Parts: sequence; C-alpha cells; structure tokens
Amino acid sequence: MNGAESLVRTLIAGGVNVCFTNPGTSEMHFVAALDQVDGMRCILGLFEGVVTGAADGYYRMARRPASTLLHLGPGLANGVANLHNAKKAGSGIVNIVGEHATHHIQHDAPLTADIEGIARPVSDWVRTASSARTLARDGALAIQAARHPPGRIATLILPADCAWNEADGSADTSDAAAPARVAAECVVAAARALSNGASTLLLLGGAGLMQGSLEFAGRIAAKTGCRVMASGFNARVQRGAGRVQVDRVPYVVDLALATLKEVRHVVLAGAKFPVSFFAYPGKPSVLVPAECQSTQLAAAHEDVEAALEAVAAELDASVAPPAMLSTAKRTELPSGRVTPAGIGAVLGALLPEEAIVVDESVSTGRGLFPFTANAPPHDWLNNMGGSIGFGLPVAVGASIACPDRKVISLEGDGSGMYTLQALWTMARESLNVTVVVLANQSYAILKGEFANVGAGAPGQKATDMMTLDRPALDWVALAKGHGIEAARAHNLEEFARQFQRALAVKGPYLIELMIT
Amino acid sequence: MNGAESLVRTLIAGGVNVCFTNPGTSEMHFVAALDQVDGMRCILGLFEGVVTGAADGYYRMARRPASTLLHLGPGLANGVANLHNAKKAGSGIVNIVGEHATHHIQHDAPLTADIEGIARPVSDWVRTASSARTLARDGALAIQAARHPPGRIATLILPADCAWNEADGSADTSDAAAPARVAAECVVAAARALSNGASTLLLLGGAGLMQGSLEFAGRIAAKTGCRVMASGFNARVQRGAGRVQVDRVPYVVDLALATLKEVRHVVLAGAKFPVSFFAYPGKPSVLVPAECQSTQLAAAHEDVEAALEAVAAELDASVAPPAMLSTAKRTELPSGRVTPAGIGAVLGALLPEEAIVVDESVSTGRGLFPFTANAPPHDWLNNMGGSIGFGLPVAVGASIACPDRKVISLEGDGSGMYTLQALWTMARESLNVTVVVLANQSYAILKGEFANVGAGAPGQKATDMMTLDRPALDWVALAKGHGIEAARAHNLEEFARQFQRALAVKGPYLIELMIT
Repeated sequence: MNGAESLVRTLIAGGVNVCFTNPGTSEMHFVAALDQVDGMRCILGLFEGVVTGAADGYYRMARRPASTLLHLGPGLANGVANLHNAKKAGSGIVNIVGEHATHHIQHDAPLTADIEGIARPVSDWVRTASSARTLARDGALAIQAARHPPGRIATLILPADCAWNEADGSADTSDAAAPARVAAECVVAAARALSNGASTLLLLGGAGLMQGSLEFAGRIAAKTGCRVMASGFNARVQRGAGRVQVDRVPYVVDLALATLKEVRHVVLAGAKFPVSFFAYPGKPSVLVPAECQSTQLAAAHEDVEAALEAVAAELDASVAPPAMLSTAKRTELPSGRVTPAGIGAVLGALLPEEAIVVDESVSTGRGLFPFTANAPPHDWLNNMGGSIGFGLPVAVGASIACPDRKVISLEGDGSGMYTLQALWTMARESLNVTVVVLANQSYAILKGEFANVGAGAPGQKATDMMTLDRPALDWVALAKGHGIEAARAHNLEEFARQFQRALAVKGPYLIELMIT
Repeated sequence: MNGAESLVRTLIAGGVNVCFTNPGTSEMHFVAALDQVDGMRCILGLFEGVVTGAADGYYRMARRPASTLLHLGPGLANGVANLHNAKKAGSGIVNIVGEHATHHIQHDAPLTADIEGIARPVSDWVRTASSARTLARDGALAIQAARHPPGRIATLILPADCAWNEADGSADTSDAAAPARVAAECVVAAARALSNGASTLLLLGGAGLMQGSLEFAGRIAAKTGCRVMASGFNARVQRGAGRVQVDRVPYVVDLALATLKEVRHVVLAGAKFPVSFFAYPGKPSVLVPAECQSTQLAAAHEDVEAALEAVAAELDASVAPPAMLSTAKRTELPSGRVTPAGIGAVLGALLPEEAIVVDESVSTGRGLFPFTANAPPHDWLNNMGGSIGFGLPVAVGASIACPDRKVISLEGDGSGMYTLQALWTMARESLNVTVVVLANQSYAILKGEFANVGAGAPGQKATDMMTLDRPALDWVALAKGHGIEAARAHNLEEFARQFQRALAVKGPYLIELMIT
C-alpha cells in the first residue's frame, strides 16, 4: 500500500472515521485511498472554513476527532478562522494538509507557502511528514495529539510523494488519555471558598456544563448557597427541562460588572477567569471586583465532573437535590411583530427534544437563553473564538455527529455570509438542520460597539460600513442557489409556522426571519 | 486628533485613498475617522477574502496600494489565501489589522490570537503599533514597504488603544522607490544569449508583459529570431490588436515539456524559471531540458522594461518593427453547443475595447487565450498564487481602480464558490463587471489531475469529492441573493446574446454558462 492508504487506515483504526474535505491535486492520492479502504465517511465542503468548522461541531457532539483534508497552505489558511474557534472550544481535530512533493518545494511554484507557519497559530501540534514509511506513525501521533483533553488541534502536513510512495502499513494509536484528576488541595480550597455562600461564584465552563457536572454544581449550590454561572460563551451546554439551569456572564461589560459586583471569590471549574470580550476606554477588562479572590478547581483539560463530585463530597452535598433545576414548561406561542423576546418565545414553545442549538445569533439572540430554559432537554453551542462564520459549519458537523437529532442553526445575516457555502453541504448530505437567519440587514452589533468604544455617533461613511441593506441580501434565493428549501417570515406567526414546517421536514430548511 | 485619525490622514497623504474593509469592534475608531477625514473611499466586503483579493486587483490596475481593514487575527486569517495570491503577484497592499487594546491582550479573550504569526507567511513587512503617537509613523513605513517594487504586502497591526488615544498628527511617506536598473553585464549576457536565435527563449513575466516591454521583446525577436513566451500565469498581460502577442507556457506538464523541448537557453525578464505547477510521479519539475542554460536579465523587482530596452539597443534592434504584432481581427460569432473553443470565439468576437479579463476559468478556460489575441486591446489577469477564489474579488478591485473599463470575470463554478460574497460588493458599488460562470458542476481540473498523479480511475467516493452536481448550484439564484441581475445560457447563441446584454448594462451582470 502507498503512504496515503497507510494514513487512511491509521485514521480509521484510531477512531477517526469522518473526513471533512476540500481537496486539490496534491491530495488526490489520499482521495484515491478512500476508495480502497472502507470505513471513512467523506463530506465535501465548497470552502475550507466549512470544513474546519464542521470538524469543530463534530467534536463537540461526538467527543472524538474528525479529520479534515485541505489543499496546501492557502487551503489551510481558509480554514484558520474556524480552527481558531475550534481551538478555543477545546475541540480535537486532525488536519491533513497537502503539500507539494518534497523535491518540488524548492522550485517555489505558485502554491508554495510556509504551511507550518500558517498552521502554528491555530495548532497545538504541527508536523510535516518526511517519508511514506513514517507517515502512518505521524498520523497516529496526530490522533493522539488531537485527543489530548479537552481536545486539541493537530496538523499533519502531507507532501504528495509521502502519499504516493510505498509504505509498510498502518500504525496503532495509543489509547486516549483520560482527563487528569485535580489535586486534593484544589478540592479542599474550592470547598472552603464555596462555603462562604452567596459571595462566592462557582463559574462553570467546558465539561462543567455537561449534565453530570451541572448536577454536582446544583447540589453544591443547594448546600452552600453559592452562586453558579456559566462563562459567557461555551462550547456546549446541556440544558432544558430536568437539568440544572445556569445563567451566562453577560457580553455587555456594564451588565456583566453589575451582575458580578457582589462576588468576592470565584471558583473556576472548567472556566477561564471572567474577562470582557473586548476592551473599552475607561472600563475594566476583568469583570469581577478588584478585591475578588479566585480558586481554580479544575482547568479545561482536567476532569471537571470528578472535581465537582469531589467538592460535593467534601461539602457533604452529594445526595442533596440540586438547586436551580429546570421544570418542563414551554413558553406560549407569541404573535405579532418580530422582537428578540418573541423569537425566544417561539423557540421555547417549539424546540424539539434533544435539539442541538448552534447559536451565532449575535446581537439579536443575546436574550434567547431564558426563554428556552424550560424547553425539553437540548444542547446549546456558542462561538468560542469570536471569529464570525462559525455557525453554519458547526451545524454541519453537529448534524453529522448526531444524525437523529434536529440541529437549529441561529444565524445573523451578517455572520452567516462568511461561510454560507455550508448550506450546500447541508443539502448534499440531507442534514437535519433548520437554519434561522435573523435578518436585520446590518452589522447591528457594531452599531452598539461604535458607541461603546466612545467613537460617538456614526456619520454616513461609518454607517455604510455597518449596514447590509444596499442591496438587501435575499437569503431565500441564497438558499435556493445552494439547493436548500427556504421561506421568509415577516412576523412571529409566520415564523412559528415556518419553524414547525422546518421541524417536520427531514433534511435542511432555511427561514429568513425579517427583523425591522 | 486620535491615533486612528492620524493613521487615516497618513494613508491619504501617502496616496492610499481606497480602503477595502470588513471591520469589527476593535476597528471602530478607524471607521469613525473615515467620517472625520475626506479623501478615503471605503468599500465593504462581507468576507475578508473579498477584501484582500480586491486590494490585489486594485494594485494590478492602479499600480498603487490600497489598504484593507481587517478584524483581529481571524479576520486577517480569512484574507490570507488572497494575500498569498497577491504576494505572488507582486501586488502592494497595506493591511490594517485591528487588535485588542494593549492592556487587554494578556487576558486571552476569545479573539486573542497570534496576529503577527498569522500575518508573517503572507507579508513582507509586519509591525504591531505600540502607541497612538508613533502610529502615523508606522503607517508611513507600511506604505513605503507596500510600494517597494514590484509591490509588497505590509501588515500593520493596530491595538485599539493606539487608535483611540491622542496622537500628534499624520506622518509623511517618503517617495516611492523606482525599480532598480539592471547591471550592464546582465544586458550584455542576455543579448549574447538571445543572439543564438530560435534555441533561446526570452521568457517574460511581471512588468515584462506591459505594452512597452512587449514592444522591445518583439523587436528583439524580429532581430534575433529568438522565441518569446510569457510565464504560465501572469499578474497582468497587456494584449490584443496592435500589441505584441506572446503565448504562455502551458499548465499541463507534458504539453509544456513538448513546447520547450528545443530550448537551450532561457533569458528571464521579470519571469521566474519555468517549473511545473504541481509535481507528478516520474515527471520533472523543471520544464526546460536539463542541459538548458539560463540568464536572468531582470528580476520582478527590477526595471524590466528598461532592461529590455537596453538589450534591444545592444542588439541594434531598437527601431526595427516588432515581431508577433497582433492585427485587429475579431473571431466570428459561433453557434451551437457550448465548447471551450466556442466560448473563446464569443469572447474574441465581443470583448470590448480596454476590457479587463480576470481569468479564473480553470480547466474550461485553458484554451481561451488564442481566440482573444486579435480582439481590441485589453488586459488579462491570472491567479498568481494558485489559491482558488481569487477571481471575483480581484474583479472588484480592478473595477474600483478602472471604473470606466468593463471587467470580464471568468469563473469556474467550483472556484467562484470560495469567495462568492464578492457579488454583493459588485452590486453595492454598481461595479461594471460581467461575471461569466463556467458551470460544469464539478471540480473538473481534479478529474484530470487524479489520473495525472497516477491515482488510477476514481471510484464512487473519490468521484464524490470532485463533483458538484448533487445538488446543482444555481448561480442565477446565488446572484439574485447578492442583489445581482443574472441569466443562464445553454448554448453559444444564448451566451453571445447574454454577453452582449451584460456589456450594455452599466453595473454588474452574471451569466451562468452551462457546460455539459
């Protein structure tokens, strides 16, 4: 077998059996190997940001890495923004990036680039294969790197001759490392801090927002009266009826400062220290008071659930019923003009059980969380790196990971445009995704931020940089262009009707929800 | 004035008066400064690949740098592929990349990234501003770096506080450096080699393909009988009736080897040594015979036209009429089934005077060049870095640079999808661009390359990675979604009629030309 086949066999043996691809000439032997070896599902994206974002979404739901297949340095570059988001999400991905044959690189052909240099800012592990015979071993190391808790970005650069030359066979990947247990002192210190009650905040992130962790957090709160919140953005929150419901730290700095002003001690469980998304003149970056102490119970790569369980045991809270349990209570279906609250109420009323909500609703969607708290159990996925264009691709990957669940992709019309090519992959793979485009025909977030940074009131030129209404985007036509059925909703009744229709459809459906 | 205003004033004073933008929160002060200062034209792109590609196209036609405005590391990353293309094209660009305020970076907020690391592989000059008061000077240095012949990529990273803090005023940019004159020995050596006649190839690239250079090359050929060709891909070729017409080195390796097999000496004028685009098993990377000697007359950053003029003088060929002059002779309008030759004939028959052809026609368009050789004078722009998705953005920038000329954007349906958001900017700015999508519903180039690299015949999985017909993209709907009028053509008569209609329209128009 050639190197490409040895790599594909190694990936499959290592549990990496989904490949999101946008290949070119230098990757043809890898593509050919897919015909030779059973067990790898290949999904084509028409732009590399779709490919890498899909791998992020896949990992968040499947908890194991997918691979990507990208075309040399520029192909990787097109995927970097969503790799940035994936890295911040702690998603494990094995990138396979084609490269010129080793003897061809010296000639500086058009596509020659510093691939390692492009990879490094968004990769935890980078290697360029040096021969076909060592390629399988490199692949096994890449898988091992990608599986490092909580999940890492591994980039293996594959010169074409390492793919087409003769190899010896596949390589075995060592077992995935379990997340490290936290030290007993951390547990004791956290338990002590949490015993102070309401002035202590237990801040959850990462695996701290999975159901098991949340239950221990709820028990700890029931016992101690501490506050429990989630970070502002989270890779995956398990929530809905019967689960412990926690609010997120607000995005708007003044709101976050007001929310956290009584906090004197913050205990971090899978979460990072709370800081603002951006800096603003005269406002602090740190969102808790200056005198606030902090204790790190568990970092993102550690076993957060076990740490919370240990704290609960330490506090003798292991069996108490959790505080903050959500009851099953849907919102009423609203009517009339489209408002953020109205959108939330429609979602709360109709969200199907086990839905996966991919939230890139930006400004319009900031208030949607409370309306869905008592909907049936579901997962909620945020953008972790702040690079716009994560939503549609992550919805693709989540749907590949969980074909029997409905994915609800909440998109801004501005943010959706960065990676709209994901719609085609949804159509091609008949993915069970409902896309809701919140069409306010502007970069609405920037209108607020313009004032927040103290830039005053925008004049005509600045306004032109924040408005998308000349011409208006027609998302129904864009969806049709990508092979997806779509409709427009102008009020909440139409939205509810379209949303019900979308849920009944097996396959993708797009609703352009007009916000005026 | 604040730092942002000092930078905008510096850019305008330095001749950088077009800014292609996709801004975010950290760039709001720069955006605000655009309202305060007259003289900067701002053009919004809905994806950063559009922004950087437009800056490339602008430079190729205007011969002076535009600026871009990008949102932190991920915003820059989305523009990297087209910066790669621009760098290989020798296009000068001043990238302004927003960054968190200097005091905020330490907090590792979601958008924090190694921006310099992302910039470096595609930039000739990178700097992070350190204060508002030194920002204007940094801007002047960036302009100077971008104007370095033939044109370079300068990336200035702008922390938000350097934009919002108080500055002293704008800075002056030193005059643009002229391209260096080549040494007399090079001229003599080139002249001697060219005197050998038909076994010597004068290979032109860069500024060697502008009308003045071509005339000297034509005179040299008339005098010596040497061969003259252009590199396979060129940033800009001035061609058409009354100009010296040169063929390009073919893309297909076997064809290139056959074309160049008699060459014993190659003289490089603005061109790089001829190598294949990709490597293929058992085939050489170098396209001329092993015994072929080479002489570099002028590198891309040197004064190619002056060097050719000097060679012509050395050979006493300065006043001879040039060889290879194109006559004015349009092709006949063809009819019937859509074929590559038929497409070429329609273009040859209808191409308007002073058209700017942006050629990302990939496999279908490989044979179009001869059909347009005797059309009225026009410019022809190729993809220089091989990163697909250059065409529509470059068409945007070329049209901004030359609003009175018709831009013809020849796009593959596969390649067009990488940066289709450019259509919206064409609509918003009413750009005089005719887009022709050559819709063969596949990555047709890969079907050939699959065999070329020796991967055999593709099976079902491999075929799925190279076909775009499930579902079919609907480019008419995609154009409508972006606010552009469009129509579909199924045969050459329809294509010719639509093309005539597009030429008559002031503003953008898209033709989806079905190739079956």
